Amino acid sequence: MRAVIFDLDGTLVDTVYAHTFAWWKVLAEARLPVPSWKVHRLIGMSGGLITKAAGHEIGRDLSDDEVERLQTRHGEVYKSLLPDRTPLPGALDLLRHLRQANIKHAIATSGKHKDAAASLDVLDLPAGTVIVDRTAVERAKPEPDLFLACQEKLGVSPAECYVVGDAVWDLLAARRAGMLGIGLLSGGYGEEELARAGAYRVYHDPAELLSHIYQLGLRSS
Amino acid sequence: MRAVIFDLDGTLVDTVYAHTFAWWKVLAEARLPVPSWKVHRLIGMSGGLITKAAGHEIGRDLSDDEVERLQTRHGEVYKSLLPDRTPLPGALDLLRHLRQANIKHAIATSGKHKDAAASLDVLDLPAGTVIVDRTAVERAKPEPDLFLACQEKLGVSPAECYVVGDAVWDLLAARRAGMLGIGLLSGGYGEEELARAGAYRVYHDPAELLSHIYQLGLRSS
Repeated sequence: MRAVIFDLDGTLVDTVYAHTFAWWKVLAEARLPVPSWKVHRLIGMSGGLITKAAGHEIGRDLSDDEVERLQTRHGEVYKSLLPDRTPLPGALDLLRHLRQANIKHAIATSGKHKDAAASLDVLDLPAGTVIVDRTAVERAKPEPDLFLACQEKLGVSPAECYVVGDAVWDLLAARRAGMLGIGLLSGGYGEEELARAGAYRVYHDPAELLSHIYQLGLRSS
Repeated sequence: MRAVIFDLDGTLVDTVYAHTFAWWKVLAEARLPVPSWKVHRLIGMSGGLITKAAGHEIGRDLSDDEVERLQTRHGEVYKSLLPDRTPLPGALDLLRHLRQANIKHAIATSGKHKDAAASLDVLDLPAGTVIVDRTAVERAKPEPDLFLACQEKLGVSPAECYVVGDAVWDLLAARRAGMLGIGLLSGGYGEEELARAGAYRVYHDPAELLSHIYQLGLRSS
């Protein structure tokens, strides 16, 4: 195995619960009540898909205008809830280890450029780190586009890539991409939910992944 | 089976994600950083136990003063995040069904009186509903005290009681009390997490429980 592609929110940065609560609040304000545990299980898809799924929960399709308004409002509420972001335990060490060991890696996020930037800022990434966000591809997770775009930029084959993510959507997209998925509990899913979605391994957080990285057989490039 | 004892937050009222985010924020403010997914898995214990567990996560015991201050601050942040509470789907219908069918039931919450009152308010409970809160017993979940206090007030034996809860702590406390636990996914745990903690059945939310209530063999009193 020659490369690791990371999801961002919930995998490297501790943002899933703020995202969940912000979406729940925005949907409730708009009289589109979706219970918060169901909102939680939608996080990791793009904002567009989250609003579509919310429409499914309440039994009617949302218009493009509604979707646009909800996404804008989510951005505002999310920012006010979480002005500062925190890397998950071990995230900085894990990325540093990969750089020092010359193991190819990239970050693939369903967030758009501006929102992703605030999470990327706390990761101390050097210039040149491969990052693909929602704006660079046509379709978000669980479609494989984000991961395939990373793999192409890294110059490796899909079968040589691990995808590390906290959400079922990451693991499903990894399977669609022909990659092995590694689940992290740091997004709040249960271990078996991730295993059932096809996770090859499940760790608590980036720190536990780093301490078991010998299990993964990663090669330097 | 002759009685159903309900947990309140996350089981009948959609409050777990606001509780989680509020505790996470309060602990971060106090420089006791606990990742939010770990905070989520502590919800359902009393505030005192949550702060003790947070101390365990960061590797030192908190003083009684610190615990008191954190609990007060949590109350403030929680209220500002969630001024209005929402019953979970089916919660009002399920309680109405139990009343109409003369099936004994009670509510047991790890919250203290004032906080529990705000959740109870949205449930349209008639006077005389059996409610036991944190202030009525010596020890909170996962100790069985809350459920045993309900069972005594209902005048049934532990073996005749179901406990319905969203957290692993409810199901563990049910086993300690000699009662069968029923898990709900509405608090954001995965299905297998609840099954492993001993759940006799797992449903999505109160609505799904109500639509399958024939499975439970409950008798009128």
